[in-house]
Amino acid sequence: MGPGPINADPRVLRAMSAQLVGQYDPAMTEAMNETMALYREVFRTGNEQTLLIDGTSRAGIEAAIVSLVAPGDRVLVPIFGRFGHLLREIAERAGAEVHVIEREWGTVFTAAEIEAAVRETSPKLLAVVHGDTSTTVAQPLEGLAEICAKHGVLLYTDVTASLGGNSFAADELGLDAVTAGLQKCLGGPSGSAPATFSPRAVEVIEGRKSIEAGIAGSADEIAATRIRSNYFDLAMIFDYWGEKRLNHHTEATTMLYGARECALLLVEEGLDAAVNRHRLHGAAMLAGVEGLGLTVFGDRAVKMNNVVAVVIPDGVSGDGVRGELLEDFGIEIGTSFGPLHGKVWRIGTMGYNARKDAVLTTLAALEQVLRRHGAAVTAGGGVGAAYEVYQDARAGAR
Amino acid sequence: MGPGPINADPRVLRAMSAQLVGQYDPAMTEAMNETMALYREVFRTGNEQTLLIDGTSRAGIEAAIVSLVAPGDRVLVPIFGRFGHLLREIAERAGAEVHVIEREWGTVFTAAEIEAAVRETSPKLLAVVHGDTSTTVAQPLEGLAEICAKHGVLLYTDVTASLGGNSFAADELGLDAVTAGLQKCLGGPSGSAPATFSPRAVEVIEGRKSIEAGIAGSADEIAATRIRSNYFDLAMIFDYWGEKRLNHHTEATTMLYGARECALLLVEEGLDAAVNRHRLHGAAMLAGVEGLGLTVFGDRAVKMNNVVAVVIPDGVSGDGVRGELLEDFGIEIGTSFGPLHGKVWRIGTMGYNARKDAVLTTLAALEQVLRRHGAAVTAGGGVGAAYEVYQDARAGAR
Repeated sequence: MGPGPINADPRVLRAMSAQLVGQYDPAMTEAMNETMALYREVFRTGNEQTLLIDGTSRAGIEAAIVSLVAPGDRVLVPIFGRFGHLLREIAERAGAEVHVIEREWGTVFTAAEIEAAVRETSPKLLAVVHGDTSTTVAQPLEGLAEICAKHGVLLYTDVTASLGGNSFAADELGLDAVTAGLQKCLGGPSGSAPATFSPRAVEVIEGRKSIEAGIAGSADEIAATRIRSNYFDLAMIFDYWGEKRLNHHTEATTMLYGARECALLLVEEGLDAAVNRHRLHGAAMLAGVEGLGLTVFGDRAVKMNNVVAVVIPDGVSGDGVRGELLEDFGIEIGTSFGPLHGKVWRIGTMGYNARKDAVLTTLAALEQVLRRHGAAVTAGGGVGAAYEVYQDARAGAR
Repeated sequence: MGPGPINADPRVLRAMSAQLVGQYDPAMTEAMNETMALYREVFRTGNEQTLLIDGTSRAGIEAAIVSLVAPGDRVLVPIFGRFGHLLREIAERAGAEVHVIEREWGTVFTAAEIEAAVRETSPKLLAVVHGDTSTTVAQPLEGLAEICAKHGVLLYTDVTASLGGNSFAADELGLDAVTAGLQKCLGGPSGSAPATFSPRAVEVIEGRKSIEAGIAGSADEIAATRIRSNYFDLAMIFDYWGEKRLNHHTEATTMLYGARECALLLVEEGLDAAVNRHRLHGAAMLAGVEGLGLTVFGDRAVKMNNVVAVVIPDGVSGDGVRGELLEDFGIEIGTSFGPLHGKVWRIGTMGYNARKDAVLTTLAALEQVLRRHGAAVTAGGGVGAAYEVYQDARAGAR
C-alpha cells in the first residue's frame, strides 16, 4: 500500500509467464502493434508514435528528453517535488541549458506563473511532471498547451504516478510528449515505460536523424545535434516499432506482454471507471486516516486520487510504524524524500490495490500499530470513516 | 532456434509470475543481494559491483561505456561483426574519440593485431565484443588484459551472445567491465542486463562522481566530465544496489526475478556442465547441417558453441525457407545483417533450446523444407549426422 511499486494485478503476472516468440515472428510484431493501439486508448491520443521504452519509467523520461533536446537547447522545468528535480538533472546531462521555477512541496503552479517563466526563458521544451508521488499532488496541465503554442514551445509531461487513476487525455491537453510507467495505477511491475509523441515532437526527433544523415556540414555540427544516446534514440526506436522494423534493441518480450495486459485491464474496465475507482478508494483512505485523527499533507484541491501523504504524529517513529506494519501485518506504506523525509508517510490506493478490502485492512492495521506506538487514535475511527465513504458512494449511485 | 531471443526456460517464466514486493522490503533487497552473488558465480568474478542494468543488453553496453568514457576520451573498438559497429556508435555518442580496426566478418583478431592498435591509438578503453552473433564467432580474450595492463588501458567486453554457453571467466581474463543479456544461453527474456565491474573500473566511475561533487573548478569542467546519462550513471546504480540503497530507478522486480532464476539454473547445472551441453548440441547441429549438404560460414576454430551460420544454397530463397519453417513447423531460424544479409541463416542451440529433441526436430524439418524448395539434400543426412555426434559423446563418456 505504498506509493508504488505496488502489488501487480494477477492477470498481469499470468500474462508475463507466457512463452517468448522470436523478434520478427508475426505473433510478436502483432503483439507490438496491439500494444501501441491499446496505449493510444490509455493515453487518449491519436499519435502514431505510441510505444514502449524498454526500461523503468525514468528510462522513458530520459528517452523523451535526450531525443527532443540537443546540447545548448533551453529547457524550462517547474519543480514542485522530487521528480521535477529529476527532469532538471536529466535535461542538464543531455547538455541543455536548464531553467527552473520552484514551489513549496505540496503545492502546484498556476498557469500564469508558468507562462511568466516561459516568457522569461524562451525554452525549446517545457518539461513538467504531472503527478509527483513525492508530494502526492498533480500539476494541472490545462492551459499549458495554449501557452506553449503561443511561444513555440514543446510540451512534455511525465504521468508515471497519475496515469490510469486520474483524468488524463494527451491530445485534449495538447501534449507533445508523454511518458509513464507500469508500477502505479496500471498495476504492473516496473521495467517498461509506455510513451507517446505528437507529430510535432516526431518531426523534431526525426530532424535530428536527418541532420546526422549528411545535411549538416562539419563533423562538429553533426556531433552537436546528434542524439546523445543510442539506447534512447527515439528516431531509431520509431523505426523498430514502425513498418520498417529496423532492428535496434531486442524488444523485452515479457515486459511487453505485461505492458499489454496492463493496458488491456484499463481499457476493459473503461478509463473513466478506473479513474472513478481510484477516486472512491482514495477518498475512503483519506477519510480513514483523518478518522484516525491524523493530518493530511499537501494541497487537497490538487491531490492525486491514488496516494495520500499523512503527517507523522509528534513523538511517533515513522520508520518504527512502517516496520511493524510490514513485519506484523504484511502491509507496506512509504516514507518520502527531501524536505518531507521522515515527516510524512505515503499510502497508496492504486492499480490492483485500489480495493475496498485493501483500504479497510490497511486502516485497521494502522490503528493497531499507531496505538502500540503511543499515538492517540480513535478506536474504529479509520475504518468507520472509510465505511461512510463507501456507503455514501452506494447511496449516490442509487 | 534462432540466434536469440529463444524460448525461455519454463522455470524462468514461472519465476517471473511471482507477486511483487516493495522496493525496500527486506525480501526485495535480499533478492537483489542474491542476484549479485549468483552473477558473481556466472561471470566467475569476485567483483563487488556485479548487478543488473534495467534494460536490454544494449542498455548494459551503454551504461558501461557512458559511465567509463568522458567526452574526448579515446576508445579503441576492434570490429569483426555487427556489434562492434554498435560499440563504436555508442562510444561516439558518448562523445569519445573512437578508433577502430576491422576484420572481415567470420574472422577474429590476433592479440598482436590488437596490441598494435593499442600502441598506435593509446586508448583509455579497449571495447571488444566477445561473441558476435551476427557472424557466430567469438574474439579470444586471452592475452588482452596483459596488453591493457602494459599500456594502462581499461578492458571492456560484451558477452551477451556467449555467456553460459562458452568458457568464460571475468577475473581470470582480467576484465574491467563485462555486460550481458538474458536472451541467449541464459534462457530468459530480453530486458535485463547483468554486468560486472572491476575495482579499477569502479574507481574510474566513482571518480567522475566525486568531481561532480565539487572538486572540479568551473561549471564547464563539471559538465565535461559528468556522466552524460542519469539512467545509465553507474555510480548512482552502485549506490542503489549497495548498502546505501540510495533511490535511483525503481528496480524492475519481475525482470530481477527472471534474471535471478536464469543465474540459478546455470549455477545448479554447473557452469562447466552448461558449456559442455552447449558444445554437444552445437556440435550435433553443425554436423547435422553439414550432413544435409550445407556449408557452414565463419572460422570454425573460433565459432561459438551456441550458434551456427549456414550458407543459403544458390537458388534457394532464404526468407522462403525461414517462413515455411516458422509457418508449417513452428520453428524459427534467423537471417543475418550487413554483408551477411540474405547470405546465411543462423541457427541457435542455446539456453533452453540446447536440447537433443530441439536439434533433431529442427534438422528433420529443415530437410523437408529444403527439399520442397528444390535444394539437393541427403535424405536423413542431417538427423543421422547429429545422431552420430550424440552416440560418440555417449561412447566417450563411458
